Amino acid sequence: MSKNKHLPEDREALINGATYPESKKTQQAAEKATTYAASVTAPETVVVDKPPPKPNYPLYRVQPGERISLSDIDPNTSEHYRKKKEVMVELEKHRQRIRKLQERLYAENQRSLLIVLQAMDTGGKDGTIKHVFREVNPQGCQVWSFKIPSDEEASHDFLWRYHHRVPQRGMITIFNRAHYEDVLVVRVHDLVKEDVWQQRYHIINEFEQMLTLSNITVIKFFLHISKDEQKRRLESRLENPDKQWKFSKNDIKERRLWDEYQQAFEDAISNCSTAYAPWYVVPANKKWYRNLVVARTIADTLEAINPQYPNGEKGLKNIVIPD
Amino acid sequence: MSKNKHLPEDREALINGATYPESKKTQQAAEKATTYAASVTAPETVVVDKPPPKPNYPLYRVQPGERISLSDIDPNTSEHYRKKKEVMVELEKHRQRIRKLQERLYAENQRSLLIVLQAMDTGGKDGTIKHVFREVNPQGCQVWSFKIPSDEEASHDFLWRYHHRVPQRGMITIFNRAHYEDVLVVRVHDLVKEDVWQQRYHIINEFEQMLTLSNITVIKFFLHISKDEQKRRLESRLENPDKQWKFSKNDIKERRLWDEYQQAFEDAISNCSTAYAPWYVVPANKKWYRNLVVARTIADTLEAINPQYPNGEKGLKNIVIPD
Amino acid sequence: MSKNKHLPEDREALINGATYPESKKTQQAAEKATTYAASVTAPETVVVDKPPPKPNYPLYRVQPGERISLSDIDPNTSEHYRKKKEVMVELEKHRQRIRKLQERLYAENQRSLLIVLQAMDTGGKDGTIKHVFREVNPQGCQVWSFKIPSDEEASHDFLWRYHHRVPQRGMITIFNRAHYEDVLVVRVHDLVKEDVWQQRYHIINEFEQMLTLSNITVIKFFLHISKDEQKRRLESRLENPDKQWKFSKNDIKERRLWDEYQQAFEDAISNCSTAYAPWYVVPANKKWYRNLVVARTIADTLEAINPQYPNGEKGLKNIVIPD
Amino acid sequence: MSKNKHLPEDREALINGATYPESKKTQQAAEKATTYAASVTAPETVVVDKPPPKPNYPLYRVQPGERISLSDIDPNTSEHYRKKKEVMVELEKHRQRIRKLQERLYAENQRSLLIVLQAMDTGGKDGTIKHVFREVNPQGCQVWSFKIPSDEEASHDFLWRYHHRVPQRGMITIFNRAHYEDVLVVRVHDLVKEDVWQQRYHIINEFEQMLTLSNITVIKFFLHISKDEQKRRLESRLENPDKQWKFSKNDIKERRLWDEYQQAFEDAISNCSTAYAPWYVVPANKKWYRNLVVARTIADTLEAINPQYPNGEKGLKNIVIPD
Repeated sequence: MSKNKHLPEDREALINGATYPESKKTQQAAEKATTYAASVTAPETVVVDKPPPKPNYPLYRVQPGERISLSDIDPNTSEHYRKKKEVMVELEKHRQRIRKLQERLYAENQRSLLIVLQAMDTGGKDGTIKHVFREVNPQGCQVWSFKIPSDEEASHDFLWRYHHRVPQRGMITIFNRAHYEDVLVVRVHDLVKEDVWQQRYHIINEFEQMLTLSNITVIKFFLHISKDEQKRRLESRLENPDKQWKFSKNDIKERRLWDEYQQAFEDAISNCSTAYAPWYVVPANKKWYRNLVVARTIADTLEAINPQYPNGEKGLKNIVIPD
Repeated sequence: MSKNKHLPEDREALINGATYPESKKTQQAAEKATTYAASVTAPETVVVDKPPPKPNYPLYRVQPGERISLSDIDPNTSEHYRKKKEVMVELEKHRQRIRKLQERLYAENQRSLLIVLQAMDTGGKDGTIKHVFREVNPQGCQVWSFKIPSDEEASHDFLWRYHHRVPQRGMITIFNRAHYEDVLVVRVHDLVKEDVWQQRYHIINEFEQMLTLSNITVIKFFLHISKDEQKRRLESRLENPDKQWKFSKNDIKERRLWDEYQQAFEDAISNCSTAYAPWYVVPANKKWYRNLVVARTIADTLEAINPQYPNGEKGLKNIVIPD
Repeated sequence: MSKNKHLPEDREALINGATYPESKKTQQAAEKATTYAASVTAPETVVVDKPPPKPNYPLYRVQPGERISLSDIDPNTSEHYRKKKEVMVELEKHRQRIRKLQERLYAENQRSLLIVLQAMDTGGKDGTIKHVFREVNPQGCQVWSFKIPSDEEASHDFLWRYHHRVPQRGMITIFNRAHYEDVLVVRVHDLVKEDVWQQRYHIINEFEQMLTLSNITVIKFFLHISKDEQKRRLESRLENPDKQWKFSKNDIKERRLWDEYQQAFEDAISNCSTAYAPWYVVPANKKWYRNLVVARTIADTLEAINPQYPNGEKGLKNIVIPD
Repeated sequence: MSKNKHLPEDREALINGATYPESKKTQQAAEKATTYAASVTAPETVVVDKPPPKPNYPLYRVQPGERISLSDIDPNTSEHYRKKKEVMVELEKHRQRIRKLQERLYAENQRSLLIVLQAMDTGGKDGTIKHVFREVNPQGCQVWSFKIPSDEEASHDFLWRYHHRVPQRGMITIFNRAHYEDVLVVRVHDLVKEDVWQQRYHIINEFEQMLTLSNITVIKFFLHISKDEQKRRLESRLENPDKQWKFSKNDIKERRLWDEYQQAFEDAISNCSTAYAPWYVVPANKKWYRNLVVARTIADTLEAINPQYPNGEKGLKNIVIPD
């Protein structure tokens, strides 16, 4: 809009290098904290007391820099498990682990966990929350769903409404849809120009690093279903009177954009799976297996965080409670 | 806390390089937007219709990468002006420019301006707001003051409460104290470890870049007074019954930490004056000159933003208003 | 929905009497505070130092219990004033009174003022804010505009979003449209059943009493224009390229509902003009007269509030500022 | 502060009568909605399909207008139950009822439930939440704890922070401490004058009526323990290393104010147990019995609300999902 006459050279350098004018000490402090965070989000590297977590991590975790292709990942796989009842006991075990670790996280009141859930329609976000977190104390766990932004939200930077909902210390927060919507639906429906959504991958990486440096562990799950499976699930909603309210005619329009969405997900996941805030692509055609993978990964990550009950105040030794 | 066994090599590389796994396109889009932003925050490079803004920018603007020393900057200087009455007309002119440009910014409803004010106690933040913005329509201008964080705020990442208050489109927002408090008072009083405040410079740079990429222009003023001047102002508060309520005994304790604060300001300004979100160190012993410099810089920056009245809806041509 | 079998008699009594099971002391405390509030909102009863405020209050103020008819109130009247320039000096005087009283209100930091502006489209809400508050320090004055509620807002009780924006101590807050929208647009467009909007008058009265008891003075202005005047103003927007963006084709649809809106305003004003939170119906065809009435009433009300600079801390007497 | 000269008579009348200038229709609409709400909060009057809920309501529910004396209510009682294991099955049954009814409440997305928990220190608020809501989907259930208000909160009317957290449609919200703190701790510690906390009972009654009229069912539990029981629980915290962090020396200071707190609770409960938002005084010395009573009452109230799955969109009949 304004006529950009000429930009001094020193400014160009700084912008193009994408570096900041920070001192060495600042960079070292940030690196140290990021390195620690990266160990937590690779729980297999720190959880050693018990037999190493299964499956061999980083199965399903997207490595930083890896370019994924969703069509290469089988949404139907389920390791050696063949039936729901084979995982029931293990799933319950992970739920109990989450329950107990959440209790310690809440008591410790220093760190927190942010879980991002994204998926195609019917991918199972609601069901995952319901089945994985059903033992968790609601006092230490919050779920936020993000729909179409309000006028006020749309009138701010796109991260504004998400940042407002990140966990405070001691909490587990679940984002049912998250800031990735702003490089997904917005891109598929051409709501903003490519330049705008392109730079958002960068903004997201910076945002998640900021959270990481603030003692918030960030892990992200893409619940991966096949197009056939979506068809079956939509049909099931139509046929079941108690589920019809979940069906919207708009779902069919969105379904026609299946390929565009898959492409957008691939880019989002490839551009934003970092060492400190990784994406997991979870095979999700089998709901019971999806629940197992998500519960197991969360429990392992919480165990890597390893929260501790805090010490009591000093000087409690000789206290007598008066009548 | 957790036992960090060993971190795979690919992760190390990514962390130490401080790079993100983004595609080239993303980086290019971010660079393009940042370059544009950097031209706005150097208003002398784009405001050309009228004689170039005075004084020769970048006087008082800290260049990216420059390490400043506050003791080298005279808080008493005032260009060629010698008395308040010499600047009255010019100040009023800039206030009118701000008023009119704010009206267009509000009508355009696309971009916004965030003004950060920081200073030592009695440095003149309140007075600057009062005198520079006294003509502005309060409907398009918000001021947020940040004091000691509440428990809820302290329980989130340090940027949480600031991000919540950034301007929405069309607005001018003034932060009376801002996110820099978290590398100032917090450092001087040893409230967090050095590792924590060191990495915050990096987080702040990323945060301000995010705002920039979201069409929010960020400019930051340090109102620079001398230690003697602070003494005079504190004495004046003590002597004037109508001003005594502004005086707190704590001010004296803070004054004893003058050198530590100056050091902390130097680091904050040096580490975080970027091409797209520059710091201005404003000589502020003379209140009238301080007001002039701030008003002029804001007016010039708004002119570089150059907001436009939007077009009307389509098809207004033959509309007749019914009785 | 549920089958309401039978309600015990003691419950019936309590509901029908619309009384609460509070002790006598509680009622007396509430009455005392309300009585005080009612004196502030009748500034002519307390502002006595200077000649009594003009015009003879309660001109334009709707008395509690009065049923108004807007067609009986001339939107064109302007006392003895005939031209804009006759009021310029007086308007500026009131602006300066507001500016100074706001400064004291902010310093006192105990009480606050909530100003509600409602009007038909083009009635002049934006213009009133711009001209009445143009001298006010934006640090002590906030303007909130309320448009169509977001999904989140609509999913709460209707007062939720308004309560969130009421002034904190020391502030002047202006609601550009307010909670009255929920008995206006919502009624005219049949968005909720009559039973729902009918009971809202009661909820609003209780809400405003609660604010009153919390040291927030509430005054409400209906900017009263004629249907002809609206036509002229809409035409002027269409003709002026710099104003076309303010025109929406929807304005014409709303205009066709003029009578329904007038009826809804009459009911809202009649049902909710209380002694402690009165409505003023301001003749608003002449913009300069409207500004005068609003500025004068606000200045008088602030003078009735009569805010005071607070005392300084104790023990400031022998303090010496160290070098 | 201002000199209150004289208040017109018509104003006096209105204030003293504590009535509002509302039309008859408004009052009738409010009464109708309140009557319906009062039936839901007396679940025994509407839940008839199954054998009537036990125990014979309104056991433990405080009747509107009743002045209670806590010393007359035995905190040790537990109906005919003698041991924890006698209630395990029944408690689990109520948890499952809550889980299923919550699912319907969430799907219906029209009404909501606000649960207030108050108690003396160690009274069991946290434990109640943990044990009663452990099966609930966290997506439909939020818990908010209220501690010492922040400066921003304290600078608003006392209800401000509570109103912000009331449930949106479809949700169950639990207040762990609530707006009653402002007539409890604030009174016992003389933080505000009696006039101020006295009128708050009235404000609270109006607030809860407003919520009621907005389809939010409000029920309130006082978990009633004896002073001896508090002693045992404090001692147990001191002795158990994993629980020491819950102990604060301040607890002992508060314990010395036991009688003042009991008095303040009696007044709060007596003044604010209304037909539409009743208080329950729950014998809470036996944790397992307390959990049973709270779970049973919530389940019964949800059953009285009787939420329904919504119908699907129209025109779903012949829809075919494309491949």
